[in-house]
Amino acid sequence: MKNRIYIKDLKDHIDEEIIIDGFVDVRRDHGKLIFIDLRDMSGKVQTVALPNHKEAHSAASKLRSEWVVEIVGKVNKRPEKMVNKNEELGEVEVEIMEVKILSEAEIPFEKDAVINLDTHLDNLPLTLRTEKAKAIFKVQAEITKAFRKFLNQEGFTEFQAPKLIGEDAEGGANSFDVTYFKHIAHLAQSPQLYKQIMVGVFEKVFTVGNVYRAEKHSTTRHLNEYTSLDIEMGFIKDHTDIMKIGNRLLKFIMDALKETRAKEFDLLKAKVPEVLENIPAMKLREAQEIIKKETGEDCLKEPDLEPQHERWLCEYAQKQFASDFIFITHFPMTKRPFYTYEDENDPGYAKGFDLLFRGVEITTGAERIHKYTELVEALKKKGLNPDKFSFYLQAFKSGMPPHGGFGMGLERLTAKLLDLENVKEATLFPRDLNRIDVLLSTDKPKKE
Amino acid sequence: MKNRIYIKDLKDHIDEEIIIDGFVDVRRDHGKLIFIDLRDMSGKVQTVALPNHKEAHSAASKLRSEWVVEIVGKVNKRPEKMVNKNEELGEVEVEIMEVKILSEAEIPFEKDAVINLDTHLDNLPLTLRTEKAKAIFKVQAEITKAFRKFLNQEGFTEFQAPKLIGEDAEGGANSFDVTYFKHIAHLAQSPQLYKQIMVGVFEKVFTVGNVYRAEKHSTTRHLNEYTSLDIEMGFIKDHTDIMKIGNRLLKFIMDALKETRAKEFDLLKAKVPEVLENIPAMKLREAQEIIKKETGEDCLKEPDLEPQHERWLCEYAQKQFASDFIFITHFPMTKRPFYTYEDENDPGYAKGFDLLFRGVEITTGAERIHKYTELVEALKKKGLNPDKFSFYLQAFKSGMPPHGGFGMGLERLTAKLLDLENVKEATLFPRDLNRIDVLLSTDKPKKE
Repeated sequence: MKNRIYIKDLKDHIDEEIIIDGFVDVRRDHGKLIFIDLRDMSGKVQTVALPNHKEAHSAASKLRSEWVVEIVGKVNKRPEKMVNKNEELGEVEVEIMEVKILSEAEIPFEKDAVINLDTHLDNLPLTLRTEKAKAIFKVQAEITKAFRKFLNQEGFTEFQAPKLIGEDAEGGANSFDVTYFKHIAHLAQSPQLYKQIMVGVFEKVFTVGNVYRAEKHSTTRHLNEYTSLDIEMGFIKDHTDIMKIGNRLLKFIMDALKETRAKEFDLLKAKVPEVLENIPAMKLREAQEIIKKETGEDCLKEPDLEPQHERWLCEYAQKQFASDFIFITHFPMTKRPFYTYEDENDPGYAKGFDLLFRGVEITTGAERIHKYTELVEALKKKGLNPDKFSFYLQAFKSGMPPHGGFGMGLERLTAKLLDLENVKEATLFPRDLNRIDVLLSTDKPKKE
Repeated sequence: MKNRIYIKDLKDHIDEEIIIDGFVDVRRDHGKLIFIDLRDMSGKVQTVALPNHKEAHSAASKLRSEWVVEIVGKVNKRPEKMVNKNEELGEVEVEIMEVKILSEAEIPFEKDAVINLDTHLDNLPLTLRTEKAKAIFKVQAEITKAFRKFLNQEGFTEFQAPKLIGEDAEGGANSFDVTYFKHIAHLAQSPQLYKQIMVGVFEKVFTVGNVYRAEKHSTTRHLNEYTSLDIEMGFIKDHTDIMKIGNRLLKFIMDALKETRAKEFDLLKAKVPEVLENIPAMKLREAQEIIKKETGEDCLKEPDLEPQHERWLCEYAQKQFASDFIFITHFPMTKRPFYTYEDENDPGYAKGFDLLFRGVEITTGAERIHKYTELVEALKKKGLNPDKFSFYLQAFKSGMPPHGGFGMGLERLTAKLLDLENVKEATLFPRDLNRIDVLLSTDKPKKE
């Protein structure tokens, strides 16, 4: 028996008899001629059942969208005028000799139907099969691939961070409780404490994994479970070293996307952004002064940026610096987590940054406190009990270099890159207040 | 100011003044001469403070193990007879001109002290810094890197599987409960249902992520949170296609380890196993017959293998086939999960396998049921309610190709590869019944 070949390779088998496997994308029944567009992981091809192959013709007439089949057929070159008429179908078509049905299907609507987001989410096992969804998650896979490739080249070591934790670094309010035998554990909101510990081991580390935020608000940019791309490195001068490597990493990722995912960006009508060698940076207070001067809105006393100001600053960066990205540094210490390093030359403000892109923050990073006694003080200042962080604190008792890092939400970055309206479109199986795959019942707590 | 250089590059800077950063590995105070072995992520070097550099000498006298320092010094070639006497220190040493203390340290014991496993686990932020621990996790990082590289080459797409789930495919007994707003969610025991759904999207997929088993027994090979390397692929002939790709993947990983991690294997006195082109395979019943014939022990009626029989079969594979690995196929359907494909030519037995290595199962894989109606029947047969799996079942209603896959526990594989006694040594931050970083209090449930 011959082996299956991929659809993309058909052009190398003209006039040969071959086997292809795939999903019925569309069936067009013209009576005598039945056209089946077949798709596999490599592409799509038009196949045709002619009346003279009786059995195959009869089988083809039964096929419907999403049925899974194996086709034995002959590869024909499509006439040039047909190719010009419909380029998408490519240069070859397959004359069906035999059809073997591997699995039938019954779908609630054609997978390419125009539907709203809720219907999309209710039917993900089907709707993820659209060209659009596949393009989104091909881009996402490429982002993590490029992320890893860059960091491996830079000598970083990847590690597996635990998600099941005792104490949460970011405070308990937004953490999910887990019944852990006779105890209560939590789901990690970030790999923060572990990546810092790992700096003591490998100096430069990264980790990719799920993180959890029990936030009750449901917006177009929040998720309760998402994927965090995290790095942390030792022996830095200050937070600007972290900004520099973030800058280079982003450039590397965007170059990789241009090279490998141009087709997907075209399909999604999105554009890979340019990353300058030096992304512009300004302190929060400078940004607030500019906002006031240019828009008249006074946000000078705010400890953070409002969504509309993040959007405005991105437009400003575009106009002023021709940059798709802008770093905002020196947020007030009061708004940053306990482990943040305070700028000795700008007391009250953190040696840290947010990176804004297309109107939202996509990365938060900083230098961290690396001296044990200062860290214990910082915990107390935030009202946290150092005893609960004894495990983490051991790293600092054991000597730690000046270090810092950042975290980047994979789904949010994907959504902004591809101009998607809702981050849920960039999340394979999004969880929110009301949904874990299916809508959660609203009447009473679900209990087995 | 000059930039820091890595210790491994010192040999290219002989007679130059340089800057190195790192951790004090050992200090040897000979009065006039103070030797500081300094380590960074790239290696270790002997530095020496001479009495004529007064300030540096005085600073060096204060240093202790794990203090973090920046040293300005001059690179000298070590006399040949000294190199021969202690090769580990390399060909160069650094004459200290200046010492800048970046962070002090106070450690409970020298990091290389001989300690028991509990003490090791109690002090991970320090004990992970030993050469042994670093070697283990360098090997582990290389395994995931090779896993990804092979699968990317084979056209697989990586995806992020959710861990926060509604219904668990493997049954509720071993799943952790999460308080999810007003509902109860669970932590996934495997990415099984999602990787099957993703076969409908990309045909060939893989995912690397944490999984959770609420198993109450504490053995040398169980963990409550571990990392699963998972693949799933469509359009297979049967489970032997999965065994074949598993076989090739293992060979690829072991070749990568030989090439990049020989030093670590040497240090750990472990040997990278050979992977035959065709790992031997036999049915469970054949294996049981052999066990009976050769050892007299009758386990013919057992639905699974006892640990001592797994060990015995590995020795047998070694003797009989000169193989470090052996596939055991066709376990009874009663012992396999609902989605397992029954062998039509061997009713009652599964088209699936365990892969044994050095005495334990490291991989479980199978062909899965791909037809909707059969899957619904299979759920019912296991006493599960199909309504609770409606989301997953949509993939099958939408047409699914014959498919299968396997899962492999990263930590267990690492432990067996490196001949570690306990899988916890191959887990950065192991969680068990009594420990999440620190020992959990035994008196009462921990509640904020």
